[in-house]
Amino acid sequence: MSKPVLTVGLIGYQFMGRAHSNAYRQVGRFFDLPATIRMKTVCGRNEAGVRAAAGILGWEGYATDWREVIADPEIDIVDVSTPGASHCEIVCAAAAAGKVVFCEKPIGNTLAEAEKMAEAVRKSGRPSAVFHNYRKAPAVALAKQWIEEGRLGRIFHIRSAYLQDWIADSDFPLVWRLQKEQAGSGALADIGSHIVDMARHLVGEFTEVCGTMETFVKQRPLVGSTDGKLGARAASETGEVTVDDATVWIARLGGALGTFEATRFALGRKNLNRFEINAEKGSLAFNLERMNELEWYDASAPEGAQGFSTIQATEAVHPYAAHYWPVGHIIGYEHTFLNLVADAVTAVATGARCEPDMEDGLANQRVLDAVERSAAGRSWVSL
Amino acid sequence: MSKPVLTVGLIGYQFMGRAHSNAYRQVGRFFDLPATIRMKTVCGRNEAGVRAAAGILGWEGYATDWREVIADPEIDIVDVSTPGASHCEIVCAAAAAGKVVFCEKPIGNTLAEAEKMAEAVRKSGRPSAVFHNYRKAPAVALAKQWIEEGRLGRIFHIRSAYLQDWIADSDFPLVWRLQKEQAGSGALADIGSHIVDMARHLVGEFTEVCGTMETFVKQRPLVGSTDGKLGARAASETGEVTVDDATVWIARLGGALGTFEATRFALGRKNLNRFEINAEKGSLAFNLERMNELEWYDASAPEGAQGFSTIQATEAVHPYAAHYWPVGHIIGYEHTFLNLVADAVTAVATGARCEPDMEDGLANQRVLDAVERSAAGRSWVSL
Amino acid sequence: MSKPVLTVGLIGYQFMGRAHSNAYRQVGRFFDLPATIRMKTVCGRNEAGVRAAAGILGWEGYATDWREVIADPEIDIVDVSTPGASHCEIVCAAAAAGKVVFCEKPIGNTLAEAEKMAEAVRKSGRPSAVFHNYRKAPAVALAKQWIEEGRLGRIFHIRSAYLQDWIADSDFPLVWRLQKEQAGSGALADIGSHIVDMARHLVGEFTEVCGTMETFVKQRPLVGSTDGKLGARAASETGEVTVDDATVWIARLGGALGTFEATRFALGRKNLNRFEINAEKGSLAFNLERMNELEWYDASAPEGAQGFSTIQATEAVHPYAAHYWPVGHIIGYEHTFLNLVADAVTAVATGARCEPDMEDGLANQRVLDAVERSAAGRSWVSL
Amino acid sequence: MSKPVLTVGLIGYQFMGRAHSNAYRQVGRFFDLPATIRMKTVCGRNEAGVRAAAGILGWEGYATDWREVIADPEIDIVDVSTPGASHCEIVCAAAAAGKVVFCEKPIGNTLAEAEKMAEAVRKSGRPSAVFHNYRKAPAVALAKQWIEEGRLGRIFHIRSAYLQDWIADSDFPLVWRLQKEQAGSGALADIGSHIVDMARHLVGEFTEVCGTMETFVKQRPLVGSTDGKLGARAASETGEVTVDDATVWIARLGGALGTFEATRFALGRKNLNRFEINAEKGSLAFNLERMNELEWYDASAPEGAQGFSTIQATEAVHPYAAHYWPVGHIIGYEHTFLNLVADAVTAVATGARCEPDMEDGLANQRVLDAVERSAAGRSWVSL
Repeated sequence: MSKPVLTVGLIGYQFMGRAHSNAYRQVGRFFDLPATIRMKTVCGRNEAGVRAAAGILGWEGYATDWREVIADPEIDIVDVSTPGASHCEIVCAAAAAGKVVFCEKPIGNTLAEAEKMAEAVRKSGRPSAVFHNYRKAPAVALAKQWIEEGRLGRIFHIRSAYLQDWIADSDFPLVWRLQKEQAGSGALADIGSHIVDMARHLVGEFTEVCGTMETFVKQRPLVGSTDGKLGARAASETGEVTVDDATVWIARLGGALGTFEATRFALGRKNLNRFEINAEKGSLAFNLERMNELEWYDASAPEGAQGFSTIQATEAVHPYAAHYWPVGHIIGYEHTFLNLVADAVTAVATGARCEPDMEDGLANQRVLDAVERSAAGRSWVSL
Repeated sequence: MSKPVLTVGLIGYQFMGRAHSNAYRQVGRFFDLPATIRMKTVCGRNEAGVRAAAGILGWEGYATDWREVIADPEIDIVDVSTPGASHCEIVCAAAAAGKVVFCEKPIGNTLAEAEKMAEAVRKSGRPSAVFHNYRKAPAVALAKQWIEEGRLGRIFHIRSAYLQDWIADSDFPLVWRLQKEQAGSGALADIGSHIVDMARHLVGEFTEVCGTMETFVKQRPLVGSTDGKLGARAASETGEVTVDDATVWIARLGGALGTFEATRFALGRKNLNRFEINAEKGSLAFNLERMNELEWYDASAPEGAQGFSTIQATEAVHPYAAHYWPVGHIIGYEHTFLNLVADAVTAVATGARCEPDMEDGLANQRVLDAVERSAAGRSWVSL
Repeated sequence: MSKPVLTVGLIGYQFMGRAHSNAYRQVGRFFDLPATIRMKTVCGRNEAGVRAAAGILGWEGYATDWREVIADPEIDIVDVSTPGASHCEIVCAAAAAGKVVFCEKPIGNTLAEAEKMAEAVRKSGRPSAVFHNYRKAPAVALAKQWIEEGRLGRIFHIRSAYLQDWIADSDFPLVWRLQKEQAGSGALADIGSHIVDMARHLVGEFTEVCGTMETFVKQRPLVGSTDGKLGARAASETGEVTVDDATVWIARLGGALGTFEATRFALGRKNLNRFEINAEKGSLAFNLERMNELEWYDASAPEGAQGFSTIQATEAVHPYAAHYWPVGHIIGYEHTFLNLVADAVTAVATGARCEPDMEDGLANQRVLDAVERSAAGRSWVSL
Repeated sequence: MSKPVLTVGLIGYQFMGRAHSNAYRQVGRFFDLPATIRMKTVCGRNEAGVRAAAGILGWEGYATDWREVIADPEIDIVDVSTPGASHCEIVCAAAAAGKVVFCEKPIGNTLAEAEKMAEAVRKSGRPSAVFHNYRKAPAVALAKQWIEEGRLGRIFHIRSAYLQDWIADSDFPLVWRLQKEQAGSGALADIGSHIVDMARHLVGEFTEVCGTMETFVKQRPLVGSTDGKLGARAASETGEVTVDDATVWIARLGGALGTFEATRFALGRKNLNRFEINAEKGSLAFNLERMNELEWYDASAPEGAQGFSTIQATEAVHPYAAHYWPVGHIIGYEHTFLNLVADAVTAVATGARCEPDMEDGLANQRVLDAVERSAAGRSWVSL
């Protein structure tokens, strides 16, 4: 008896498109899924680029208009991996066409968009998935499992930071990601949304937030900008940075206190997404740069023998790990997407709810929006 | 030519009294100071206790009334190491008597007290010192030196946390430190004041703060309480915790963004006072539990060879280190007090200003007070 | 103009077969190679097993006799990923048939076999490759590059250990890997060969060795054994372990002193392949469990600012890294195989020498043989 | 009832003399010992130097001839902290005079000397102590306690290294420590003796060793040499280094396999004395540069939650720790001497055997001697 086939159309083939394509291509090699994935169409506006990408990334064909993908009756799943500004239109159209929607995070550039998208998906009655992939790292999934089993007890604290440094140099040009009309926002949406998801997933819903945002470098050179619309400029011309370089906030969530920080100005921190959770029976710590490890303090360990343990979440008993290599043989960034796709495809094939889905995407956006409003209003904002 | 003698009287002989006594006793063994320290009198209310302490800690004699210490014309320096509630009265009296005042941190239980004390010291015209000892760890002093030399450039971020876990167990009794009328406040004053000092010292003055405070365990058993006034109680009797178990806040200081956390509910974190500073030319990180090390990211290191370096601040070129043991032979917690006393005594003997002194203690208290007010008012408070 | 095609036949589809298949399948997705890889045939003795593996791993077809693979005129590259006992016969036959041979490590179970295989490959005049994949980790390749550039200067020391713990439990059964007639040898060949390759690659040729071998658990239960030939046994029956549980040795190599250790009895060390190299101008350290990181001590860093730096070898300037994800987004164990296959296929397509090849495999086996003889003879053995 | 007094005379006031003096001066401040220590006489050949040292280090008086110290009937304990060449004569004379002997490690420059000294002490019938201070670090004492309690079970491996870098620069001058006639030997005796003691203490007696020694830099400049006898030299003059820069060896001890390394050529490793022990029920690791921590892998931890834990050996339940500061407030290098003196003085006062004593010193020297002979003879040497 052969498995049902789920046919995918992917919109966008840059960084996220590559990561998603890899996941679709690889997931069946490591997981015995209830459905087979068919990689039918990848879509991008530049025909030469998308044609090459189709070959390299393993798609049967390509399109240059996302409407073709949605119109294709063979396609079951529309994966939206474009920059945030185009999400809403595509997702709403795909949902209206009855497609299963998979979408990059954050789902929209504004809360209004996110609400519209979530509503469209709700109406479609179809499942959806959002690429908050880091909760699918084995170490994070292990943390989640333990929290759900009651192994930590009541949670008191989460401190979380997503630190990068790629724009700390003031000579770095004014790329589109630093312009509000194109990118929606800066560090908060791009990386802050990841730590919001982790915190919601592990600790619970945010009930109130208070934050502040900062743009350390307010003018940047236009020369070297990747934004074609700016065209050729003299070296001395600069433009205004209209998004946040960094956002920090405190919060109450799931009965716990939280501190959060998203910045692109932490020199030396390339992709440091870390959290620590302190609870009644122990503490957990995670660091994406060492994503195969989970730090665990077990307050029930024998007296005098207590300490933070470094668990290598590569044992067969750990979530997802048995699908890969023997213990101690680590996996990488890309495998978090395989794990997410494995879960999402399984959910689609079996009619279960995907986690995280558009409702999670919306809840996430509500937090981002609340942080922005709290920063603008210099006040706490309740959710 | 013999050195001048500075005669010390110490009020308080518990934990801090022990640490201070050790510093006075040892500092001349490691530093060639411009004055000799004479440890004349230690003072405590319990005669048997203070008599024993005098012998163990190396004091010539003892007193049971702090007024005797202040009245002693031979005594140059009055060191106030009692619990916070008694600081103000003693410090003001000592200053009025023309003594040099050394004082434990935070200097007072309230901002009003702190202002009164600082004013008293100002009027006395004498130098003073406050025991913010952690800025005297060689690794922290090295960080300070580099920041002053411009080696970091503009500072963007400080994230700082002081994490302990000694009251995370809800069966832990209602000791005096958890009662506002005795302790003044909780985690904020006790350990939060340390990270305020580090941040002021390294990054600059706080200009605004917004925080929140939490008491996770609101009732605790009276049995086992160390507060004699409560007397013998039934096991089932509980009392109210009236101080904060944890305080978190965000801030702007010295042009940078800061996140701060002081908690006694971080299981597994015994005495984790850590900070990370991200600046234009590099980043620094410190962790008191590994206090001989400084983490340094040098953005000017060759391309491809950049990374956080673990500097052992035990080399002869590092602050204070040449006074102790060869490179790689670490010092401990107690030596931060030696370093502070060495600096303070040198300042007193040479007429220089001690750092940190009562003005620093006052500035510190202003920040603590602002954080408390911001938490109470659920708003930002400017300084 | 289309690229030439290199057609591969893989013998063996277990752990190593999976890793190799993944590499062939994925390498063209990340590298723009001078040839296209065609995954034609996977071979195994169990038809049901190999048929299933072909589908899961991405092979066009399968065979149950390796001679079919060698006889196939379309096949350019024969990859031998079977257990060591069968390497020699297959490799020699493949070489005689003029195939390019890729082979798992160690190439043979004895030095005599290795010599025969290397000679057969030499006679064939074709290139070859051996799967010492760890030298292809970006961090290790970076170390190699720096050593070749003279950035370390004269090397004084290498200390190297490959530590695992999967048989430390004395109740673990007598699997075939613990029986000399099947496995050839124990920890030395299996994991010791990896650290020999790393040391040869980075430091230079071994000139003399002196080692000792130990079998800590000499009898193990037959029940639960994976060796079918043993059949069903009573729980009390045991058999003799005839290979080394651990081997340690000291050596001189490339003018340096070396200490080496290969053991399966290091509880808690799941797959800890680590080395440290101390040289005239700096030191390097690597740990496979954190394979994206390289530790680097630069003696030319400014005085007082020297320390071991943790370099994340994920920057575009680092070897292989630009083919994967942005900085700080780590790769895993499987990618070392992609890197090796990329290099090997490029060498085959361009007529260059692969590194490492059969000559490296032979040189490696000479070291293993010398260590065994030194242990047997309780003496130094020169190479 | 007052305590008995033990009067100490110390021979040598350089680095070790400072560390011992500090211990005598401080130990009674932290430990309630069964005897009081009187620091009567410090002895050195340079009168101005020893007079100053007496004042700084806290001795009542000084002497310039060690015979005076031994002749002093008030002195109970003679502490020999001179360079190794003079140990034998002084220790034998002190023992002959019926003194309790405390001695720096290694006790002699040759095995013959060590035997003579141990015999002299045996004849005296008095206790003795040797300053193998690192076994007195709380983390190491905790390891010892657990091993003795059977918490680790059978030990399979110890890997141990003492790494320094102070002579890695080939321009470093020919100081007396690099001349055999003065220093006896190089890295092996100076730092190798420390790791021999740790291994004997924790794992058991060495039964056989096989090692090799290397002098990487064979000629060094005489200019800048600290050896007064060499006098003023031209910058171009060099002399021969006659001791080992590094020694590595493998061994069998207490039923386990061991690898050992002592070197002064490990750039970046300032004072890295580390070991890892792998046993039946768990593994332990220690690193002197983070001497307050013990790494512990507990194989009995719940499945999926196993990993190396970092225990801060600063809890009241840990050996020695209750004498110092609260948990998480670390101690330093000097405190290992306090702990050793506390144990030794207690043993002397109560008539118990000190650990380690001259018999340990002798056993240690037997291992060093065996390693040297094995290196010279290129063969295993049994003990």
